[in-house]
Amino acid sequence: MRESSLLLHVYGQNAALPARVSLPPGDDMGAVRFDPGGGGDAEVLVAVDQLADGVHVDVAHTSLSQVGRKAVTRNLSDVAAMAAVPLAAVVAACLPRDFGQSRAEALFDSLRRAAAAFDCPLIGGDIAMWDHPLLLSVTVLARPEPGIAPVKRSGAAEGDLLYVTGRLGGSLIELHGYTHHLDFEPRLHVARRLAAVCRPSAMIDLSDGMAADLPRLLAASGDLVAQVELAQLPISEAAQVAAAGSGRPPWQHAMGDGEDYELLFTVDPAQARRHLPESIEGVPVTRIGRVRKRLNPDEPPLLLMDEEGQVHPLDSTGWEHAGT
Amino acid sequence: MRESSLLLHVYGQNAALPARVSLPPGDDMGAVRFDPGGGGDAEVLVAVDQLADGVHVDVAHTSLSQVGRKAVTRNLSDVAAMAAVPLAAVVAACLPRDFGQSRAEALFDSLRRAAAAFDCPLIGGDIAMWDHPLLLSVTVLARPEPGIAPVKRSGAAEGDLLYVTGRLGGSLIELHGYTHHLDFEPRLHVARRLAAVCRPSAMIDLSDGMAADLPRLLAASGDLVAQVELAQLPISEAAQVAAAGSGRPPWQHAMGDGEDYELLFTVDPAQARRHLPESIEGVPVTRIGRVRKRLNPDEPPLLLMDEEGQVHPLDSTGWEHAGT
Repeated sequence: MRESSLLLHVYGQNAALPARVSLPPGDDMGAVRFDPGGGGDAEVLVAVDQLADGVHVDVAHTSLSQVGRKAVTRNLSDVAAMAAVPLAAVVAACLPRDFGQSRAEALFDSLRRAAAAFDCPLIGGDIAMWDHPLLLSVTVLARPEPGIAPVKRSGAAEGDLLYVTGRLGGSLIELHGYTHHLDFEPRLHVARRLAAVCRPSAMIDLSDGMAADLPRLLAASGDLVAQVELAQLPISEAAQVAAAGSGRPPWQHAMGDGEDYELLFTVDPAQARRHLPESIEGVPVTRIGRVRKRLNPDEPPLLLMDEEGQVHPLDSTGWEHAGT
Repeated sequence: MRESSLLLHVYGQNAALPARVSLPPGDDMGAVRFDPGGGGDAEVLVAVDQLADGVHVDVAHTSLSQVGRKAVTRNLSDVAAMAAVPLAAVVAACLPRDFGQSRAEALFDSLRRAAAAFDCPLIGGDIAMWDHPLLLSVTVLARPEPGIAPVKRSGAAEGDLLYVTGRLGGSLIELHGYTHHLDFEPRLHVARRLAAVCRPSAMIDLSDGMAADLPRLLAASGDLVAQVELAQLPISEAAQVAAAGSGRPPWQHAMGDGEDYELLFTVDPAQARRHLPESIEGVPVTRIGRVRKRLNPDEPPLLLMDEEGQVHPLDSTGWEHAGT
C-alpha cells in the first residue's frame, strides 16, 4: 500500500465537497467558512498529525518532554505553512496499558506546555489504553491573520523564484545538545511576516524533505518543474555531520533527510526583489532556484543544477536518478 | 493507570487557559472564541475521539463501512451533546502495513460518506503505517446554532428533572440486522430541537453508560445527586436480549452497557412541563428521575428507586453497591 496513491484517491472526491469548504484535502491544512452569527464570515483552518512510537519518534530514547513538544510542533509547522494563526489544539492519545500514571501525566504536561508556548491552548482530548505502542494525534485549529488569506500550495507560477527558510538536512543528528527533528521552532512568525511583506505565491512546510515536498507544491500548482541550484542550498551543520557518516554528499542530506520543518515557498521575482529580506527574526531566507513550465510530459518535476551548471533530474528521495 | 485520574490531572490546568477558551477540557467538546475580522465574534467547537481496533471496534468482524461510520458518528454524538452544528472533520489513520490498498480506500470512502451524510465534510487528514492494529482518530469542528449557546455538562440545578432520549442497553447485541453501537444515529437534530424548545440546563451523550456518564454530569454541575426511577427507564429490546443471556436484570444493561449515544439531560421542571414533548422526530424523550443537592459528603451521586419505592445507591458500572 502506498500512502501517496491513497491520498490521490481521497483528493479525487474533493469536487463533491460543499461550498463552505474553502481549503479541501491536499494542502497543509483544510478550512471551512461559516457565518458566526449576524451575517458575518469566519474561516477556520484545521490539520491533524500523528506521532507514532517507532515511526515518528522513539519513545524509549526520547524525553517525554520532547515527545509531547514534537507532537504539537509538527502541527504548528502546518499552521506556519498557511501563514495562519494558531487558535487551539486537541489531542487523542492511545497509551500502552503499562505506560504508568506519572509518565502519562508528564506527557500531557509537555503537550500542554508546548501548545501554550505557541499560544495554541490544548482544549480537549481523548484518552484510550491498549497493548500496543503510544500513538498521539494532535489536531490544531487556526484562523487567518486579518488581511492575509491562507497561503496555499497551489499558487506557484512560471518564473517564480524558489526560497527556503533556515538550513536543511541531518535533522536526526544531535549536535551541541540540539536535535532538529525534536527541538525545531515552527516558523509561525516568520511565515506571517513573509506573507505580510511579500505574499508568497505558494508555500509548504518541509516535513518529508525537499525532494519529496517540492514536487507536491509543483503538482498542486500545475504543470511546473523546479530547478534548484546546488550552490545555493543552505546546508545545515548537522547535514555535514550526517554526510561524514554516510559517505554521501551533504546536499543529498539537505534534499532528502526530511523533518526540516522549514518553509519552502515561491515568490514573484518583482515582489521578491522589492520586498524579501535576507533573513527574518534571525532565520535566513535563501533563494535556491526557480520554477518554470514543464517542457514535455516526461520531464521530471525536480532538477538540480550542479556547481558546473549541469542540470540533473532528481527522484523523490533526493538522489539522482539511476543512469543520469 | 486510570483514565479518570489522568483526566483530573489535565482539568487541573484549566485555570491557566487564555480568555478565548470558551469551553475548557472537561465537556463533550472544547471551544474557542475569535475575531473573524471586522471586530465580530466567532465561536468554534472541537472534539476528538479514537477508534482503536480491539478496543472500540473489532475490525476483523466488522464491515469497513461500519468501522468508518462509527469513527465519525461517535464524534457527532459529542456535537449533539452540545446542541451544536457540525462544520467539518479531519481524520488521522494509522494503518497496519498489510492493510491493503483497496481496503484502505474502502475505509476512507466510508469515513467520507458518513461525514458527508451528516453535513460534516472530511476536509483533511494524516495517514501513517505501522506494524500494529488500526487506529483512527476523528476530530470534528462545530459551531453553535445561531441563538443557541452550547449546552454544557455543568448547568444542572437542584430540583431539575432528568431525561434521556431513545432506549438504553444491549448496544453490542445484533437484533433484526441492527447493532446499535455501530448503526446508531447521532442525535444532532433532536439535540438542537430540544435546545430550541426547552433549554436543557445540562447535557451529555451516553458513551460509557448512564451509570458512568450521569456522575460526570453531576460532578460538572456541582454537589448534586440523581435519583433514577427504575420503572421509568426506557429499556431497549436489545437490553432484554442481553439480560436473557447474562442472567442479570435488564435495567443493569440499560444503566451499564454503554455505547448508547443517546442524550442525557436535565431541565427545569417548569420549562419541562410547558415545552418538552414526549418524542422528537420519532425519538422518545423520557423523564427518568430528578437531581437534588447531596445531603452529606458520603452520599453516592447515583441512586436508584426500585418499583417498591426503595432507594439504592449504584456504583459506576450500573450495579448495586455490595452490601446494600
